[in-house]
Amino acid sequence: MLFSSKNVLDKTIPVPLYYQLKKIILEYIQFNHKNIEEPIPTETEIGEYFNVSRPTVRQAINELVVEGYLYRIKSKGTFITKPKIKQGFLSSLDNFYSEMHKQGLTPSTKVISVTVMESDREISEALSIPIESKVVKLSRLRYADQDPIVLVTTYLPQNKCPDIETKDLMNRSLYDILETDYTYRIASAKRSIESILATEIEAEALNIKKGSAIQYIESKVYLLDGTAIEYSQAFYRGDRNKFSFEVKRE
Amino acid sequence: MLFSSKNVLDKTIPVPLYYQLKKIILEYIQFNHKNIEEPIPTETEIGEYFNVSRPTVRQAINELVVEGYLYRIKSKGTFITKPKIKQGFLSSLDNFYSEMHKQGLTPSTKVISVTVMESDREISEALSIPIESKVVKLSRLRYADQDPIVLVTTYLPQNKCPDIETKDLMNRSLYDILETDYTYRIASAKRSIESILATEIEAEALNIKKGSAIQYIESKVYLLDGTAIEYSQAFYRGDRNKFSFEVKRE
Repeated sequence: MLFSSKNVLDKTIPVPLYYQLKKIILEYIQFNHKNIEEPIPTETEIGEYFNVSRPTVRQAINELVVEGYLYRIKSKGTFITKPKIKQGFLSSLDNFYSEMHKQGLTPSTKVISVTVMESDREISEALSIPIESKVVKLSRLRYADQDPIVLVTTYLPQNKCPDIETKDLMNRSLYDILETDYTYRIASAKRSIESILATEIEAEALNIKKGSAIQYIESKVYLLDGTAIEYSQAFYRGDRNKFSFEVKRE
Repeated sequence: MLFSSKNVLDKTIPVPLYYQLKKIILEYIQFNHKNIEEPIPTETEIGEYFNVSRPTVRQAINELVVEGYLYRIKSKGTFITKPKIKQGFLSSLDNFYSEMHKQGLTPSTKVISVTVMESDREISEALSIPIESKVVKLSRLRYADQDPIVLVTTYLPQNKCPDIETKDLMNRSLYDILETDYTYRIASAKRSIESILATEIEAEALNIKKGSAIQYIESKVYLLDGTAIEYSQAFYRGDRNKFSFEVKRE
């Protein structure tokens, strides 16, 4: 058994045993169980080690499953959830591929659709263009190590990047295309982030359950002269993404 | 009826009518229906105006309810959800009170508990202190205009701010206390943000349903010399908060 000898249940304090056990298992998950391909000890093993009943162990494990730390596979055991990807996306204008490479993950992209459409009010306001302007709508699903991570829809004013729909959007980053092929210089972005529940559409695309937690991130991206060049709506899986950044006092 | 004459359903295109209607109602919500205390037009009124069946209207409204734009009150009608608070929290070290005042909202704070405890591994790592050091644990629920907005638990190394538990934490900001009473200068913070589902504990405190979307934000706050002075875990209601920030290309 891999629990350290410091981990003991204290039956004299008014803290429920399942809750004490949950804390111990959580620490074990975070610091001691290194190989996430291996199941954690079984409920029987944990119960015997700590000398507590099976329902107590089950309640501790159940809560960790509900909270997303563990998941069960029938007849295989209980496994630790894959760690979240530490995204720097919020505080950088890096592209998805270099973000993933920094994390040691292999990125890939599936282009779902590229169409030209007329902008509605929302898109027009975001891009500061008249309503019913021609925009290129690009829907992509982006993966890390085969897992879908983010579903993103991008709108670009067509007159600012003619024929962009014919470029190799699967293998090249959008920013690379904008900067190399159109000689733009991307300068800044305004982003907003909201926590929402997955509808059927996002759930199916991201291979998660309807009602799972999602980060919805809207971005408006600007060139140096202030021209809006991109508006995007991105749905990040909540269970696989954690966004980090630093703040300095002004 | 308040829908503008530009909003028409097109029965000749292969886009379901309920979906076209949903888009029209969404635009109406966002741009035309100014008084959120008033219900939107009834399903019957909308059906008659657009000459579509009641189930079509119902499906459009249902999806907008599921997506959080609308909510129903029995025998009163369908209402527009309160707008999200635009939080600058992510990109500033401003305190909660000044954040809320900037939005024209009235902030208040309920101190749930202030205790002194020994740090576990997680808190010790966050504050760079030995395990089982004395820390002050401060739990607060913060409101905007009477609505609970965020449940936040803050840990402070006790030896760096002795007797802080005796200060007026209800009416004064923590940063004001740290800077005025302890003459610290707060310099920077590392934050991470995750989208999670509310457990019973957060749901009850924040007056939302279990399983609602929540922004979980962890912060480590540092003084100019790099000393960690605060570690906090904040649970923001997903339905009332939207975090915004700007990014510049490096």
